[in-house]
Amino acid sequence: MDSNQCVVKGFSAGAVEAGIKKKGGTDLALIFADRPCAAAGVFTTNRVKAAPVLVSMERIGRGTARAVLANSGNANACTGASGPSAARKAGEAAASALGIDPEEILLASTGVIGAPLDASRIEQAMPSLVGALRSDGLMDAARAIMTTDSFPKISVFEGESGGHSYRIAGIAKGAGMIMPQMATMLCFVISDIHISSRNLQKALVEATGSTFNRITVDGDTSTNDTVIALASGAAGNADLDRAGLEVFGTGLTAVLNELARMVVKDGEGATKTVHVEIRGAVSAEQAERAARTVANSSLVKTAFYGQDPNWGRILAALGRSGIDMNPDLVDIRIDSVEIVSRGMTRGEEAEAAGAERMKNPEFSVVVDLHIGPFSDRMLTCDLTHDYVSINADYRT
Amino acid sequence: MDSNQCVVKGFSAGAVEAGIKKKGGTDLALIFADRPCAAAGVFTTNRVKAAPVLVSMERIGRGTARAVLANSGNANACTGASGPSAARKAGEAAASALGIDPEEILLASTGVIGAPLDASRIEQAMPSLVGALRSDGLMDAARAIMTTDSFPKISVFEGESGGHSYRIAGIAKGAGMIMPQMATMLCFVISDIHISSRNLQKALVEATGSTFNRITVDGDTSTNDTVIALASGAAGNADLDRAGLEVFGTGLTAVLNELARMVVKDGEGATKTVHVEIRGAVSAEQAERAARTVANSSLVKTAFYGQDPNWGRILAALGRSGIDMNPDLVDIRIDSVEIVSRGMTRGEEAEAAGAERMKNPEFSVVVDLHIGPFSDRMLTCDLTHDYVSINADYRT
Repeated sequence: MDSNQCVVKGFSAGAVEAGIKKKGGTDLALIFADRPCAAAGVFTTNRVKAAPVLVSMERIGRGTARAVLANSGNANACTGASGPSAARKAGEAAASALGIDPEEILLASTGVIGAPLDASRIEQAMPSLVGALRSDGLMDAARAIMTTDSFPKISVFEGESGGHSYRIAGIAKGAGMIMPQMATMLCFVISDIHISSRNLQKALVEATGSTFNRITVDGDTSTNDTVIALASGAAGNADLDRAGLEVFGTGLTAVLNELARMVVKDGEGATKTVHVEIRGAVSAEQAERAARTVANSSLVKTAFYGQDPNWGRILAALGRSGIDMNPDLVDIRIDSVEIVSRGMTRGEEAEAAGAERMKNPEFSVVVDLHIGPFSDRMLTCDLTHDYVSINADYRT
Repeated sequence: MDSNQCVVKGFSAGAVEAGIKKKGGTDLALIFADRPCAAAGVFTTNRVKAAPVLVSMERIGRGTARAVLANSGNANACTGASGPSAARKAGEAAASALGIDPEEILLASTGVIGAPLDASRIEQAMPSLVGALRSDGLMDAARAIMTTDSFPKISVFEGESGGHSYRIAGIAKGAGMIMPQMATMLCFVISDIHISSRNLQKALVEATGSTFNRITVDGDTSTNDTVIALASGAAGNADLDRAGLEVFGTGLTAVLNELARMVVKDGEGATKTVHVEIRGAVSAEQAERAARTVANSSLVKTAFYGQDPNWGRILAALGRSGIDMNPDLVDIRIDSVEIVSRGMTRGEEAEAAGAERMKNPEFSVVVDLHIGPFSDRMLTCDLTHDYVSINADYRT
């Protein structure tokens, strides 16, 4: 993406190398708004929350913010009393360099858990970080928050409200420890739309529910998951009516959806992106549970890697999920190829055709339970040798 | 183990190659008692149950049985109406060859899900199978039920009741799709003790709860899990009193525990056997949930493989399990080395000492939540490159 395409009126962004990442490379990102913004946030539901998550959860309650400061290389999680103190120090350094109130700065961290964050590195890097702020700097920020990611994740939507055009631009990181629940790894969204913080929060929660909360890489939920949205109002539109809010919500969902797909596509070691859809469940809760169980099964995910339409493993996963089901009613499709009909194989030819579809980098598995009206879906990836390599070697 | 050590009075066993396994090798096993036995069984809680499980669940209600017929290479699961019919045909062939009632035969299958079982191969193999029965044939049966297992699993306990010595011998198979819930893959236990089927069932359920129901390889629960116990009474002991039942229960638990450990040790691709223990939880349910979540986390299991005392992943798994906890109270030990105290690292030296313990093929991870009196434990293994290889290639 051309860096000009992610310019959003009222915002600048930038990144520098602060020496936090062991491997080197940019690891400190700043997004700055030239005026107070409506602010909304969604955070991890993990009971163990990183220090910057706790600080940002407190600050988001104000409904306004001016900046997001994020580092990679260190999650600042499980660091005891030193955690919030380091987070606050980093925020204070940014506030003083930007000439704003520390309470207007939201914080996020990602990286190793349990190692103390050295705030002095962030303090020392602050002058050059503020100097690096540019209106087209969002791609630099997207690169600086990467850890095991293999590509930066950015998505832009252009909308219009009463003759005023506006943009929604989002960046995200995440490749492992991905099964967000009410949140994701790190995702920052900026928009020049004029919107109340209440409506922004509502739109963010809704968009997150159908995007980041429906993906999984490995079934593990991070301690640092954070989605933050800032809206500067520089687009100059009037207060949004219901139709305007709907357009904005659609746009925001499109941006988060694209970013969520990128996170799964970039899942640690992943070679396949797989849409798991459950239909015909007796309740919404059961549809979600079934989709989550299939999407997280190690056996199903290794079969995806092996391009093997091993529907027995899918049925076994459904069976252990505890949902109501009658195995003799279940249909299973891979893309448009039905491989199981009423609980039985459609035969070798159908399975071969299904295996053919699984050679593609992206495909869908659709299960119809045929006992109710509810459906849900999850986006997952395969479990590969490289996932094991990445995670056996991550710290050592 | 010497095959003489697994001779149990009143029983014979044997195995042949019936041509069910694609790769060849023995794949059909028979255990036969020379008189009706007290019989007990525990079966998978997966809603999708294989045909032989359904048949055996029905027959075990009689409380007596004479034989167990088990095949590997085909799970006879998700095979529609042909499934129970093939299972019954196989049982009838064995009953007629042995001169007993088909209802006295318990059935079990393991292998590929979804492929119809060709009962005629079992029928054809029956004369040679019955001819292969030997009093010291249990090891042959243990070998014939292997699929991805790399070694046969057998365990023997010797007990005594009122001057009558007796034996409990068990065989098991299982390496993948292992997170039994109220059951395991396949496990057959024979004993010459005299015991009522009611007491046998009670002892079996209790012993299973603390052994097979506390192991996991990959979090997937099979459609075919079956534990069957047969007691011939040939030891000649009088009815067991409470103390006698307790000794038998201890012996049975010891046999199942050793078999369960073998299943984890032989976990697909596993290089480490890890005891995960949770202490100080507010309820038994939460202790179990926490132990299960840590033991099934892909990130924790790859860290085991990498011999990395990555306690951040353990805390993150605890956090997402939804249990009550205060991260600042948590202690974590690897064997006797405390690496986390009150939610914080004990420092690099302690972590290095923990990493040293993780080089052993077996070690324990003990988490103390310090907020309640309840504890539980799970036995798990690491997640390795070979797990991925085995399961990406299993059918193809």
